[in-house]
Formats: sequence, structure tokens, C-alpha cells
Amino acid sequence: MTRLLVIGGSDAGISAALRARELDPGAEVTVLVADRYPNYSICGIPYFLSGEVASAERLAHRTAADLEATGVRLLLEHRATRVDPVARRVDVLAPGNATLALDYDRLVIGTGADSVRPPLQGLDLPGVFTLRWMADSLAVDEWLRRERSRSAVIIGAGYIGMEMAEALTRRGMRVTVVEVLPQVFSTLDPELGGRVAANLRSHGVEVVTGMRVAGITQAQGRLVVAGDAHFSRDCDLVLVVAGARPASALTATAGLELGPQGAIRVNRRMETGVEGIYAAGDCVETWHRLAQAYTYLPLGTTAHKQGLIAGENALGGNREFAGSLGTQSVKIFDQVAARTGWHDADARAAGHRPLSVDAEVWDHKAYYPGAQKMLIRITGDVETGQLLGAQIVGGYGSEVSKRIDIFAAALFQGLSVRDLEDLDLSYTPPLASPWDPVQMAAQSWLRAWEAPRREYRGRQ
Amino acid sequence: MTRLLVIGGSDAGISAALRARELDPGAEVTVLVADRYPNYSICGIPYFLSGEVASAERLAHRTAADLEATGVRLLLEHRATRVDPVARRVDVLAPGNATLALDYDRLVIGTGADSVRPPLQGLDLPGVFTLRWMADSLAVDEWLRRERSRSAVIIGAGYIGMEMAEALTRRGMRVTVVEVLPQVFSTLDPELGGRVAANLRSHGVEVVTGMRVAGITQAQGRLVVAGDAHFSRDCDLVLVVAGARPASALTATAGLELGPQGAIRVNRRMETGVEGIYAAGDCVETWHRLAQAYTYLPLGTTAHKQGLIAGENALGGNREFAGSLGTQSVKIFDQVAARTGWHDADARAAGHRPLSVDAEVWDHKAYYPGAQKMLIRITGDVETGQLLGAQIVGGYGSEVSKRIDIFAAALFQGLSVRDLEDLDLSYTPPLASPWDPVQMAAQSWLRAWEAPRREYRGRQ
Repeated sequence: MTRLLVIGGSDAGISAALRARELDPGAEVTVLVADRYPNYSICGIPYFLSGEVASAERLAHRTAADLEATGVRLLLEHRATRVDPVARRVDVLAPGNATLALDYDRLVIGTGADSVRPPLQGLDLPGVFTLRWMADSLAVDEWLRRERSRSAVIIGAGYIGMEMAEALTRRGMRVTVVEVLPQVFSTLDPELGGRVAANLRSHGVEVVTGMRVAGITQAQGRLVVAGDAHFSRDCDLVLVVAGARPASALTATAGLELGPQGAIRVNRRMETGVEGIYAAGDCVETWHRLAQAYTYLPLGTTAHKQGLIAGENALGGNREFAGSLGTQSVKIFDQVAARTGWHDADARAAGHRPLSVDAEVWDHKAYYPGAQKMLIRITGDVETGQLLGAQIVGGYGSEVSKRIDIFAAALFQGLSVRDLEDLDLSYTPPLASPWDPVQMAAQSWLRAWEAPRREYRGRQ
Repeated sequence: MTRLLVIGGSDAGISAALRARELDPGAEVTVLVADRYPNYSICGIPYFLSGEVASAERLAHRTAADLEATGVRLLLEHRATRVDPVARRVDVLAPGNATLALDYDRLVIGTGADSVRPPLQGLDLPGVFTLRWMADSLAVDEWLRRERSRSAVIIGAGYIGMEMAEALTRRGMRVTVVEVLPQVFSTLDPELGGRVAANLRSHGVEVVTGMRVAGITQAQGRLVVAGDAHFSRDCDLVLVVAGARPASALTATAGLELGPQGAIRVNRRMETGVEGIYAAGDCVETWHRLAQAYTYLPLGTTAHKQGLIAGENALGGNREFAGSLGTQSVKIFDQVAARTGWHDADARAAGHRPLSVDAEVWDHKAYYPGAQKMLIRITGDVETGQLLGAQIVGGYGSEVSKRIDIFAAALFQGLSVRDLEDLDLSYTPPLASPWDPVQMAAQSWLRAWEAPRREYRGRQ
């Protein structure tokens, strides 16, 4: 009977535990959950804070009772403090400062990521919050209610920052988003990020890009966020959402190797370099399918997949992680932005000669009511015609997110841009065109790609 | 200077003409259009007849002026009557019964399909219409207005029949759909087709399946549709939408070979067996990518692709049609049904051992407002785990149509059901789950597939 110990009760850890129990109902599976919120959908936090989700409990993918019904043993508010990989034992700090030691045959580490705390003055002032885990979320909610906050400054315009800009606006607050980079959602190219910024502004959000925040102070009961060039905004709440870094503090005791960003090194079987120890999710380096190399790219979808594989392999399976493409989507008000694969800069860094071409296309036949244009940018390789990546910004309801997935499915298989034109995609006037927007964008790319060749042939 | 003559001004013909002009702006491209409606989106007819599209002209993909601006010469109301493949000449009947003869270097035949006229009495009565081309559509519209029709019987519950059931209901009419097969939309399996029928009924449409119509008569100024077992409905309008058959009358004169359903035989380069003659769209046999064989599967998406390839190859190109998967979607009221690839029956006929598994899954995280369940059925091969096909019925707004396209993209490359689980698909709580519905369905299939194997291993 295998004793599987899992450190971490979020996406990766729970996926590992459930998969192990599914494959071997005899396995003894224990999950250490650092907080009181096992298997919560932390991606749902903005919708709880906006008021769209009535209670925090609704964010649970599964309840503790559901999890325990599968035979998984949950230890809530139990935090691993040390791993002894030789004795195969983990020291644990339990509620009330009790300590215990748990033996394992196989260990899965899924400790996730922590919020980046940028080097700013004032991060510890009351009313200043980072936002990643449920405890952060409940603290923000309590603050908003107690202080009846009317205005917020959000530092960081990644997807959480933008979702929170919507959430707090929905809550009736005045919101300023401040981003040090020249654009919001910098995982998109500037032209597409610019559309997201314009959309935020059209909903009353102040968006300030290229602005370095110097610090946060308190004055007359309010918070003041100050930055370069006399930038200053006072508000009732500051959210610092400046990215995530791997929570890999435990690893020193376990003797695990870390990559340059501090993430645990694993292979595609989710094995660390230490016998019997697996790791998965936001605390590990991730295999990138295009780069064919490891990188740090924390995403919930990836954590689920890697957790499942770690759980399967810990029980004697032999499965490999197929790799990430960095596929992502985000809904902001009535707009959806999505991306997959590489854009110019990363493609160039990887030795490609990229060509990126934009197409502005209707989401469905323009004669059918409700048609909206979306912007699709395709990046492909000039030498080979290989598809390298895609970005879309369009309307909520325009099937943007599953259109990016058509690109993701094509990238998964290394298709060319021309192959996109050959795909047999579905069509009905209320939902597409005979050439789907994905294919119209591919045709724009192909025209731009072929034109100089045709000209050259013409001159011969 | 190549003289390209195209017979047919709908999807395939216009695609061929435009591609030829794009590749060679010196080519002399003439299109014979049998009616006055070049490049109309005939898939949009139900939305014109429902009143959602204000005027028939809006259904044009491009106006005649747009087309002529590309350098294509359009001859409206010109009908080809004879092809002489040796002299490379086509006899044409022009308006006013004038005749002319046009010489060509390359000919593309894109004559499309005609409505099937089932062997019924009364098909020629006033108020009884087939519905495929713009003339049909305008005739129906005129009848509805002039007669102030209040009720309709639709014979045939394929996708046009179902779309028209919605269209006429929207127009305030009482609608009965009569289908000879035991289910509506028989391109779906019965369980899924049953959901479509239930949806039609919930919107007030009477749906009668397994009913053979015997004939249509006129009585007291009304039409009476009579069938087996004393079935009888009187109404003001009868639509006969019982399928399409290739419009290949011309072919006898050209000496072209036809397949068993009367469609023109072509190869994947869209060449007929006769030198210099290409054919594309609803009048030809189509290469099926899974079957690796030719079949008759008329769809607008396919017509566009084949037309483009015919136009390109007629100008000296060398491109092959990648093949159809029969991908289709249809919106009926607030529901979308979609399918791609093979289902049990066709998979079995092709020598597979299919397994089909259903999953009922939320379109996005249930905690986010507006979540709806969709039914996804995956068909895979028991021996190899290969994906063979998929069907989905879900809500309009649930990205059903582009989710079927994720399956279509996977089928295109011959992926396994397990590969679906490995795809890096996008996720945000308002639009998906960390495992997309497509992947949850794949996991249901895999569980059903693996369970007996696991049991067997357990017994060893």
C-alpha cells in the first residue's frame, strides 16, 4: 500500500491526490493544506470580490467533504516545514503550534506561488493588500465592507490586475490601474494591449502605464500612491498584483534543484532530481512545447495537468507532460483577450524569423444581428510558414476564447499557417463565416507572406 | 493570358474566380451566374425569412460591384447549356433567350446542388416551396406577405428545416415540422437530436418524427399535408426541405464521370477526368479526411475551400483539398448543436470498433453567472484510442461551435482522445474551466475506456 503525501491543497496538489486515488483505491493519500481552503478556484477571486459570486465558499472546485469522500485525507492548516528525503519524512506545523512528522513513500510538492512583493515603501500599511490566496481575498473583502472603500489603486496590469479593475468598478468604486511597463496585459503585443486599455478606460477605469510607483503612504486616513513625475493618487485601498514567484522555500531542506527564477526543476514526468519526490504546478519549471525547453509559466490549467501526471507517476505510472503553450484568456467587462504560443519577441529570441500580421474580422456573418469585429494577430515563421502564435481581442460572446484554442490545437501539432486554412471548421451565420475568423486571419498572414515571393517570381 | 470560365456564381464558383484573379491579375476570368444573385450567402436565407435580416441584398457576401472591382467579369442570368471539352467552348443561354458561345482555356464547374423533390403529390401547388436558392427565398417571402400566412408545415428536419422552424416561429407563425426519420437533425445521434427536438417543442414548434408524408392537397383555400396513420395538418405554407442533390445536368455534355449519388468525380486537386475542367462545391464528390475516400457531403465551408483550390490549380497551381470531416453547427433559438467526424454507425461501417461516451458539463465555472450545461459525446476507437468524432448540444453563448472546432482540429491531425487532455486550452472562469469541457468529456471517455482494462489488470 503506497503512502502518498501531497504538500499543497490547490490545483496541482488536489489533482495529484485525486488521480492517485482514482488509479489505486488502496493508496493512502494525505494532503497538507496550509490554509483552510482546499481546492479553491483562486482564479475566481475577482468574481467574489466583484459581488458576482455571492459567497467565498462557492469558489471551491469541490468541498472538503467531496474530497474526503474520494478517500483522500485532508489536513487543513497544516504546513510542511522540512522534508527529509532520506528518511522520507516531512515535519509539519499543525494548528496550535503542534508539530508532527509524516512518513511517505512518494511525495508530491504543489506549494504554488506567492505574490511578488515589489520593493516599495508602505506595503505593510493597513489597506494595502497582495492578492493570490483565499486569505488575501477575504481580508480585502472585509476591508472593503468595513471601510466602505470608494476608490482603489491597483499596482500591476496583468490579468489579475485587470480583472480586479473590473471587479471594483462593478462594486461602484473609482479605480486607477498603474503599470510600470508601457502597456497593460504585456503578454499581448502593444496594439492588442492598447485595445484592452481603451476598453478599461471606456468603463471609467483610469489606466496609467509606464509609471513606476515609488511608494505608498498614509495621510489623513487615506492611502497615497506616489510615483515618478509627481504622479500621486489617494485612495481607500491599494492592491499590489505584480506577479507571482514560485513558493519553493521547502526545497532547500529537500535538496531540490531550482531554476533561475527559483522554481523547482522537474522533468516531464514531474520528477524532481530526488528519488520519490515529484513536484507540479506554480512552484515548478514548465516544459514549453514550442521552445522544447523549461521555463517558468504558472497557470491553473498547467497546474491541473501536471498534478494529474505527478499523481499518476507517483503511483507507478509513466506519463509525460505534453508541454505548455502559454494559452490564456481573460474577460474584462464586455471584452475578451486571449493568446497562445509565441509572439515576435519570443519567436525571435528562439531563433525564428517571425512575421506577425493583423486581421480585423467579423465574429460571424455581418448580416446576422450582433456581429462584432475582433482583432486577430497571427505570428508565423517566414522561412517555413510554421504557425508560432496568435493573439485575439474581441467581444465577450464572440467565442474568442475557444478560437484561441483552435490556434492552440494547431500549435500543439506544429501545423503551418496554411494548414489553418485547410481545417474543417464549423459554420452557421450566427456564429461564424464560411471561412472562420481564424481562417480569414490565416489568409491575411498568407497574403502578406506570399506577396513578396509572388513579386519575386514575377520579376524572374 | 489564361481565359478562365466559371459556371456558377455561388460559393465555389466565386471562390475560384477570386483566387484566380488574386494569383494572376492578368487572367481573364468570367463567371456565368444562372440567377441575379452572385455570391449570396444562401445559408442566411432563414434569417432573411425570419425578419432578422432586413433585406435580401444584405445576404450578399460581396456585391456585384465589389466582385467586378476585382476584375472578374460577371454574366448574370446566363445559364450554361452545353460544354464542348474538345473545342473548349461553352454554349450559354442569355436573357431574352439569346444564345452565345464562350471559349475557355480552363473551366471550373460550380453549379451547386438542387433541392430534392420527394415523390409527393401536390409539390406544385401554390404555397408549396422548396428552399435553396435566392429565387425560392424571395418567392416564399412574397407568399408570406401577400397571403398573411399564419401557419406552416415544414417537411424535413435537417438543419434548414430546423432553422426555418425557428424563422417562421419568430415571424409569429404556428409551425409543424414533419420528418420521415425517427429523429430531427439525423446527423446527430438520437440522444442529441432528441434535445434539439425538445428545444423546438419548448418554443412552440410541433415536431413529428417517423412520419412519412403521403401528399399535399388544397382544401378551402388552405393546404393540407397528409401522412401515415391519419396524420393531417392544414396550413398556409408548406416548405419541402428534404435535402440536396448535385446539380450536375451539364456533365453529360462534357463527358464527366459521376459518382453513385450523381456528383461529379474529382480528385483532390479538384480536377475532373477531362483535361482543362475543374469542379468544386455541392456538385462534386468530396474527399473525406477520416475515410480517406470520396463521398457526397455538400457544405458551404467545403465549397469555399474547393473553389479556392480549383481556381488556384486552374491557373497552374498544385494544391490538394485536405478533406472534409463533416463539421457542422446549427443554432436553433437559444441552443446550438454541432458535430464533426464520425459517430458509431459510420465508424463501424469504416471498420472501427467505436466507443461513444457522453458527458454533461458546465460551459464555464458554475460559480460564475450564466453557466449552462452542455452535452458532449465523444466517439473514439476502442483498439487504438484514436478520436473519431464528437457531437455537442449546448446553449447559444456557450462557445459550442468553436468547441466542436477544437475536436475538428484534433481530428484533422489524427489525435487520440488522450491527446485532447494534453492540449493547452485557454481558461478564465467566465468562459471555461481549468479542464475545458472538451477535456472533461475526453476524461469521461478515457475513464470508460480504461475501466475494463484496469479491472483486467487487477485480475491478473
